[in-house]
Amino acid sequence: MSSYADRLAALRAQLAADRLDGFVVPLTDEHMSEYVGSYAQRLQWLTGFEGSAGSAVVLPEEAAIFVDGRYTLQVRSQVSADHWSYQSVPETSIADWLKEHAADGARIGYDPWLHSRDWVKKATEALAAKGAELVAVRRNPIDAVWDDRPAASVAKLIVHPEKLAGQSGADKRQKIAEWLGKQDADAAVLAALDSIAWTFNVRGADVSHTPVALAYALVNSDGTADLFVAGEKVDAEVRQHLGNGVRVHERAEFENALAELKGKRVAVDPERSVAAIFDALDKAGATIVPVRDPTVLPRAIKNEVEIAGQRSAQARDGAAIARFLKWIGEEAPKGGLDELKASDHLEALRRESGMLKDLSFDTISGSGPNGAIVHYRASEATNRPLEMNSIYLVDSGGQYADGTTDITRTVAIGTPSDEMRDRFTRVLKGHIAIATARFPKGTRGSQLDSFARRPLWDAGLDYAHGTGHGVGSFLSVHEGPQRISPVGSSQSGGDEPLAAGMILSNEPGYYKAGEYGIRIENLVLVVEREIKGAEKEMLGFETLTFAPIDRRLIDRNLLSDSEIAWLDSYHADVVEKVGPGLAPEDRAWIEAACAPL
Amino acid sequence: MSSYADRLAALRAQLAADRLDGFVVPLTDEHMSEYVGSYAQRLQWLTGFEGSAGSAVVLPEEAAIFVDGRYTLQVRSQVSADHWSYQSVPETSIADWLKEHAADGARIGYDPWLHSRDWVKKATEALAAKGAELVAVRRNPIDAVWDDRPAASVAKLIVHPEKLAGQSGADKRQKIAEWLGKQDADAAVLAALDSIAWTFNVRGADVSHTPVALAYALVNSDGTADLFVAGEKVDAEVRQHLGNGVRVHERAEFENALAELKGKRVAVDPERSVAAIFDALDKAGATIVPVRDPTVLPRAIKNEVEIAGQRSAQARDGAAIARFLKWIGEEAPKGGLDELKASDHLEALRRESGMLKDLSFDTISGSGPNGAIVHYRASEATNRPLEMNSIYLVDSGGQYADGTTDITRTVAIGTPSDEMRDRFTRVLKGHIAIATARFPKGTRGSQLDSFARRPLWDAGLDYAHGTGHGVGSFLSVHEGPQRISPVGSSQSGGDEPLAAGMILSNEPGYYKAGEYGIRIENLVLVVEREIKGAEKEMLGFETLTFAPIDRRLIDRNLLSDSEIAWLDSYHADVVEKVGPGLAPEDRAWIEAACAPL
Repeated sequence: MSSYADRLAALRAQLAADRLDGFVVPLTDEHMSEYVGSYAQRLQWLTGFEGSAGSAVVLPEEAAIFVDGRYTLQVRSQVSADHWSYQSVPETSIADWLKEHAADGARIGYDPWLHSRDWVKKATEALAAKGAELVAVRRNPIDAVWDDRPAASVAKLIVHPEKLAGQSGADKRQKIAEWLGKQDADAAVLAALDSIAWTFNVRGADVSHTPVALAYALVNSDGTADLFVAGEKVDAEVRQHLGNGVRVHERAEFENALAELKGKRVAVDPERSVAAIFDALDKAGATIVPVRDPTVLPRAIKNEVEIAGQRSAQARDGAAIARFLKWIGEEAPKGGLDELKASDHLEALRRESGMLKDLSFDTISGSGPNGAIVHYRASEATNRPLEMNSIYLVDSGGQYADGTTDITRTVAIGTPSDEMRDRFTRVLKGHIAIATARFPKGTRGSQLDSFARRPLWDAGLDYAHGTGHGVGSFLSVHEGPQRISPVGSSQSGGDEPLAAGMILSNEPGYYKAGEYGIRIENLVLVVEREIKGAEKEMLGFETLTFAPIDRRLIDRNLLSDSEIAWLDSYHADVVEKVGPGLAPEDRAWIEAACAPL
Repeated sequence: MSSYADRLAALRAQLAADRLDGFVVPLTDEHMSEYVGSYAQRLQWLTGFEGSAGSAVVLPEEAAIFVDGRYTLQVRSQVSADHWSYQSVPETSIADWLKEHAADGARIGYDPWLHSRDWVKKATEALAAKGAELVAVRRNPIDAVWDDRPAASVAKLIVHPEKLAGQSGADKRQKIAEWLGKQDADAAVLAALDSIAWTFNVRGADVSHTPVALAYALVNSDGTADLFVAGEKVDAEVRQHLGNGVRVHERAEFENALAELKGKRVAVDPERSVAAIFDALDKAGATIVPVRDPTVLPRAIKNEVEIAGQRSAQARDGAAIARFLKWIGEEAPKGGLDELKASDHLEALRRESGMLKDLSFDTISGSGPNGAIVHYRASEATNRPLEMNSIYLVDSGGQYADGTTDITRTVAIGTPSDEMRDRFTRVLKGHIAIATARFPKGTRGSQLDSFARRPLWDAGLDYAHGTGHGVGSFLSVHEGPQRISPVGSSQSGGDEPLAAGMILSNEPGYYKAGEYGIRIENLVLVVEREIKGAEKEMLGFETLTFAPIDRRLIDRNLLSDSEIAWLDSYHADVVEKVGPGLAPEDRAWIEAACAPL
């Protein structure tokens, strides 16, 4: 394996050969995915950076890597300062940096299949100020020098049956066709992988932890569709499931298909489609209707079948979590447990159900100070023992055919300090404030976010992440468009009105760098709330996740009577929902763990 | 006085003479003011509409008036449906409506001194879709047919002395000059009237209730300035106060002065400057630096002298309010009081201090159902008696040389119903939630807004306005940029980070249409908060307004212990701050009104 210095040198040589004075390397793939297949992990190959968000720019003499506040420490440990300068976004944008550092009149390359049209527009304007030019490449120069680049996945599609999806693919296409009629458009481009999986009721395995397949689709105003996916992935069962209304083409044919849309009005989502798609439609002479992907809201708003599936998945997942928490409570004080052993055991317990398709993300198993790293991933190098008188944080989830789960529990090993109990109780108060919120229809997630922070703010504390993200149905564990987070934060979605049927996480936290981390995360469902005398149509949350919250970490004096009542009622529900799936000794444990405060 | 039908006909004849196929009539003036002088009240002259926000479009055969939800009822009572169609914003924009209703290829006129550049751009694009054109007029066609149009005010400028402003005009100009250096700009255009009054430490009387003068200014990078204002308004004292660093020109010379800025880099605020200013600078060959008016933040962040002045004004104003509330409590049950008598008496009490310069806005004096009209203004036609067993709402404020006040109290006449007490107590809980909030530096007003709504949301209720607006120092009672309101609401400012020294209102409410209205409004100052063990720099609010909150409207059972403690402590402060300014019998009343709950 070549060194990172060698890789950078090879890329620079390739840029020179391609007559480019620089190149921009984002983290995403041709579908603007958050998690990308190994074939597309160009940023990591070039720099060594393993975070989930970042980008880089390479110039002949300089190179810079751009990450947000979550990755300030990680980038310094993974990427060599000998060759790379570290830049913080949003303080310094790539466009700003290029304006400072690119040579006058420089030609800076970018891969139009990896950037939004909006990004291209802004970067072009910024470079124009110095007479420099942003140049779309036909072939990504990294691919040209990446010798051992993994092949794209060949994982087969599987059918996601109507008994789990709650609606047939034909019905979904018909709804999109009706929507196209209202937009006065002939076809919709679907480029986001979860949009495609949802629309066709199929799942794939091309991206780790997210059951999607690399594909594009066009849905037409007559209700038929063209699906662009590697033919070898589509077996006879899937073809039959797709039916006559879906024409299957090779994924590589997508660009050619766009070229044939001359004179058509085509709906394309600027947030979910790369610049190359817009370029191809412009070139073809199609009229672009820039509008949100029509599957985004129907996918976010779960139907009754999906909600029932989520409940089943949660009961199953909660049983694994309960057995895990019991095991931690018994084994950790004996010594010998560490973060990796713990996460391995948790995965094994989830697999025992026989229903686990995959984890929904890499488990965050953080002991003591590692719990304070929000996006921590344990490795042999960082692995810490679970020590007495410390806190252990575990954030994990499962992909089941009937639902995607995501849960965080923070537990005491030995005796927690008064400060730990104070902080944990404040996080719990924030969690309860979200769980019990009632709000009028039309309320946005951003309007609820501060409820979760107020008990921490009262003590001069806070947490540097959003309070909740959307979750898919056997799809992405981070699914938009809704989110509980302040508007203006780096994570978009806080301005989306919440609607009954949406699933979100409720996960306030507190992190003391170098000491410990706390997070309490359940999934919640947005539901209609009947309130006597109400003048508005009201919504609220129903908690979907059931697992004990560690009572040893609670300072009862900080809780109001109604907060205590919520916790006791929640714990009674945990016993009722999860208890039946447990063996007798585990059931005795959960009953004790869920005793009233 | 001509009829509205005659006025509309006259305007249409003028448009035909000017070869225009339509004309857009906004409510603002050449400074994008919220309140405008009588000379500029073109929308009201043309349509009869007296609300504070709206606009109209006149076509040869059709005319439409556009208002937001606050004015849905008012527009129907004031503007004739025979000649006007009613349109709701933001649902229907002027641009959208023109797209539907203007003839193909039509020439639609607009006055470039009354619209933002952004509005012109969007409307131009919308019209282009039908080959129609937006045409800037040289002379406003309404002015051509408005025979009895009031002359512009000739009120003299007065000095706002440094002992009240806390900083000299020369210092303020020097700070702007330093800021211009950082922007690499030669001059800043000041077009907002309160920006000019603040910068030069002068006040005027050209706009009702806001002590500003019609003027423009250019502040230059050498710290000098050019002030464009009618010469007759500037007496020798003001000239001496302005000093040698300020050149005074006629206001009418402003456009010519812009024409001389060829080659200069000029900072202009797109939100606070009309399109004509941009047009003139473009034509002159100046380079426009679009950036927020540099006085906006320093004006919003009050200095120690302004804060001390605000405290003095509040004690004085609170004494008038206390005497008023005592009077209402004694007189209303006897019968014979009505909304107009009440507001007249309140103004008289404020004037007795000898310090009142003006009201800070038209008093909202709402009895029973009129209290439910958020922007109610009593008239002979609407005037209601203050009846037994009802609620009376009064929202009022004074302009004093040392500070601008704004307070709302809601009081029971006779015996309030259980529902009224429930609603009032929920509004009070929301008010206390804002008053006691602590939050990290950088927090935006939008992040606090829901704290005020939650007690109402719990009962399925809400209010259809923001929770708080900024307030000036002997300036506008609605002063940006900060605001406590949801992002995405019709009122901007919720996304502005709060900073120590800003003054805002805290005014949740509840309105039951046709029955009663409740609002509890105090002004609050953003202050730094020391919290033991805090990990963040924290802010909070100090309440500035002191007047009794009607204990007869409170349901004690709905309040927590800490809410009761806040109210008792607040009432003790009321007695301490306001009591010393009262006569003995008034002092006895306030002590009883402020007794612990």
